[in-house]
Amino acid sequence: MQRLPPKDQLIMGIHAIREVLLHAPERLLRIFTEKSKHTSPGKKELLALSEAKHIPISLIPFDLLTQMTGSESHQSFAAHVKGRPLLDVAQFLEQIEGRERVTVLMLDQIFDPQNFGALLRAAECLGASAVVWSKNRGADLTPTAAKASSGASELLPLIRISNLAEAVSQFQQGGFEAVAAVLKPEAENALSFAFAPRTLLIVGSEGEGIQPLIQKRADRLLYLPMHGKIASLNVAQTTAVLLARCCGDTP
Amino acid sequence: MQRLPPKDQLIMGIHAIREVLLHAPERLLRIFTEKSKHTSPGKKELLALSEAKHIPISLIPFDLLTQMTGSESHQSFAAHVKGRPLLDVAQFLEQIEGRERVTVLMLDQIFDPQNFGALLRAAECLGASAVVWSKNRGADLTPTAAKASSGASELLPLIRISNLAEAVSQFQQGGFEAVAAVLKPEAENALSFAFAPRTLLIVGSEGEGIQPLIQKRADRLLYLPMHGKIASLNVAQTTAVLLARCCGDTP
Repeated sequence: MQRLPPKDQLIMGIHAIREVLLHAPERLLRIFTEKSKHTSPGKKELLALSEAKHIPISLIPFDLLTQMTGSESHQSFAAHVKGRPLLDVAQFLEQIEGRERVTVLMLDQIFDPQNFGALLRAAECLGASAVVWSKNRGADLTPTAAKASSGASELLPLIRISNLAEAVSQFQQGGFEAVAAVLKPEAENALSFAFAPRTLLIVGSEGEGIQPLIQKRADRLLYLPMHGKIASLNVAQTTAVLLARCCGDTP
Repeated sequence: MQRLPPKDQLIMGIHAIREVLLHAPERLLRIFTEKSKHTSPGKKELLALSEAKHIPISLIPFDLLTQMTGSESHQSFAAHVKGRPLLDVAQFLEQIEGRERVTVLMLDQIFDPQNFGALLRAAECLGASAVVWSKNRGADLTPTAAKASSGASELLPLIRISNLAEAVSQFQQGGFEAVAAVLKPEAENALSFAFAPRTLLIVGSEGEGIQPLIQKRADRLLYLPMHGKIASLNVAQTTAVLLARCCGDTP
């Protein structure tokens, strides 16, 4: 038995692994699954796809899958992925040189792995070019987060840094307008806001919001109008609304 | 010890119960919580609020909370709510007589309690007037769904019926345009779509989509453009984008 991969190089779940097999098979080193438990069409398709893409497959017990992923939600599938090539802001700005329209999503104090994964997925689907988040005040890329991201964790340029406030300034120097989504009705209405061609969209956790230091550095504050009695929408849903508007302007 | 409430009259979680205490305390019959486990500010505030609103409080063991809610995610709080006054379509149409702008969200084949709850929350926050879903092809209002809804399950008019296709026709006769969100790029672009004043927005599950019969009855088909490689966004996030646009036109 080979050594188990580290948790930050493991993804899990049928849907997440399928997306990576389809769109970035070169990221996959090995598939782990159970013996003879592949009766559902989804599982059969995943195995066939793994074989077609020549990804080695290891058959291991369910309990070992649970142990290696730290979760029981693996749906009998985990995958060892290559270490992610994390960028810094300067490298990213170089990569996008000359591109007029770029949206980058910045996450502040998002610790919940489900929310974190859902935010990565929304960024990938709706057209953000990268996600930036903090080494200290942010979630780790666990198998649970990777599953919730539907594989977006392997498809999207990721920028994980120590100092978010400094990164905001770097993006601003790179021609980005920094826009922070806040729970303040006196901020600008997100539904009629004209997003700049290069936008850094900053969102915070439901409980904590965005750190005051980061809010202060933002060029504009946005508010998504709430029409009901409940004070706020889930951060992943709010962000989807904002990204659809922001990237929707981006051909 | 009183008899335990039925599961469909139980909600759970600090945030969900807090929202109902604040906005619809008359829906609450009793709060269940643990003895002397209220050290966090959130739990203390919830107890104080329950007392201020004169809701009876029963102290019970953690395990009984788990048993009664069928979940370990109750955060030491459950609440017995009154049976929900479910409407039928005709009653709802009567209630909104004379109102020009109304958005109703219809859910087809949404079984996952987290998605179901998130959809109820989005509907409440973003300004839908009711949620319609199926008795047979839809999730039950469990404590897990109620928690995921942040209390929206108690704040929003709910219409649960046997025959969704028939309901679509009833809404159309009531002056609604029925708009179905589909995963077909050839459908109309949701980001530039002009929603009718009265709109029935129909969404389906990620796996199954909307039943063909219901799609056929819809007046228009909508597609939220995807810019990445992953085929689709989570249904709760997609619906938030659509509701924000649809209700955003609704003053």
